[in-house]
Amino acid sequence: MALAEPLVLYTAKICPYAHRVELALAESGLKKDKDFTRYEIDLKNKPEWYQPKINPASKVPAIAYGGPKVPGDQPSPSSTKIAESLVLLEFVADLFPNTSLLPSSPVLRAKTRFFIDAFSTKFTPASFAFISGKGPRDGLLNAIEKIQDLMAPSGFVIGDGKEFTTADAAIIPFFARMEVGLKNDLGGFEEGEGKKAWEALMTEGRFARWRKYWADVKARESFKNTFDEEYIEQSQRSRWSKAREEAAAK
Amino acid sequence: MALAEPLVLYTAKICPYAHRVELALAESGLKKDKDFTRYEIDLKNKPEWYQPKINPASKVPAIAYGGPKVPGDQPSPSSTKIAESLVLLEFVADLFPNTSLLPSSPVLRAKTRFFIDAFSTKFTPASFAFISGKGPRDGLLNAIEKIQDLMAPSGFVIGDGKEFTTADAAIIPFFARMEVGLKNDLGGFEEGEGKKAWEALMTEGRFARWRKYWADVKARESFKNTFDEEYIEQSQRSRWSKAREEAAAK
Repeated sequence: MALAEPLVLYTAKICPYAHRVELALAESGLKKDKDFTRYEIDLKNKPEWYQPKINPASKVPAIAYGGPKVPGDQPSPSSTKIAESLVLLEFVADLFPNTSLLPSSPVLRAKTRFFIDAFSTKFTPASFAFISGKGPRDGLLNAIEKIQDLMAPSGFVIGDGKEFTTADAAIIPFFARMEVGLKNDLGGFEEGEGKKAWEALMTEGRFARWRKYWADVKARESFKNTFDEEYIEQSQRSRWSKAREEAAAK
Repeated sequence: MALAEPLVLYTAKICPYAHRVELALAESGLKKDKDFTRYEIDLKNKPEWYQPKINPASKVPAIAYGGPKVPGDQPSPSSTKIAESLVLLEFVADLFPNTSLLPSSPVLRAKTRFFIDAFSTKFTPASFAFISGKGPRDGLLNAIEKIQDLMAPSGFVIGDGKEFTTADAAIIPFFARMEVGLKNDLGGFEEGEGKKAWEALMTEGRFARWRKYWADVKARESFKNTFDEEYIEQSQRSRWSKAREEAAAK
């Protein structure tokens, strides 16, 4: 696959929304540095040109598409700037209509988009609640079960499970960060709660489908090439260990 | 335009989200009763088969697509059920790729989807806040100005403004209900506040682009055939007049 125009992806390793777009580009066969420019934004210290020149909302991910080929930190006024992770997933699928990112059947395309919507309304709030210590473990586990019920019986999530779609790209980054938080017990929850949730996911029969899905994902090149587990673990550790120490000192 | 399979739209005149899909079907040239079945759901008294057989979330809009041709209140298990208004806008655009509902250029498609996202995050909360009496008039007016800044200089909202897209379908139902509420002063705001907001929209120079847009929309067949202003006014009146009387009696 090759792009008709230069593409710069503004992203951040830490951000699950940005990771969605990295997966979609990787699944389209694009190689970073060769086929597109990957530009890491330090979310705690954003370059001053980022908001005015790339994304007025100052968030990642964003894509600059078209115009002359330029370094990421010297954006051209003549490229189109596009933001919002779900808009960008559709954009990548539109750039590469012959990949599997969106099925060709209107019904399967609708199911792909509905799945992402269901994930956003069911999983994301329950997960944020548990990780931040404001929601119960069962809330997270039940949400995963609901998402699992919407998945194909085997393989990837949509249709017959044979093809990787934007639905997979949309959910994988959240599961990946959840795994790191749970198995290392990093979160605002009580000590041990994360590990208990991870043990439930790894052992209970009701999560067999999710477990197989997650093993398949972790073996996939696009995932291995876009997820820096060590970096995410260190980042989560520095975020939550201080909170844990403060709570223990009380 | 003709459909390959039977389509039943479950909708409600009152609901702006459902109205989005009615506009998209009308703009695709489909005639209700002839090309598809329009089934009105009474949101205050939903049929008992609606949630189990059509939409587990029990909301409108929803579409049943495919299977045998059946009356709306006798849904077939073999049709595909699809919900969520933005998923359905994409679905209609996918069914009719030769209409203008989504442009063919990936960049313009991305702009269409980004516009809808911006409307959902900027206009919808500010509008709900003002109408319910919990937010200021300026919040609503400033949101309209922000949306206006994202519109094409003339015509419809995307690209050169020449084509009606899903971005138009997504926003028109909200402006239509807003007009009825403001000009009739129906809302949870203080008496007179709605009319003041409407007067600002109708007279202030900064809203000239919006005014022209809205006049164009109101003259369009798809809008005239899908919006029952009298019904919406009566519904808003019965909703808010009681609240106003109660407030006055205090």
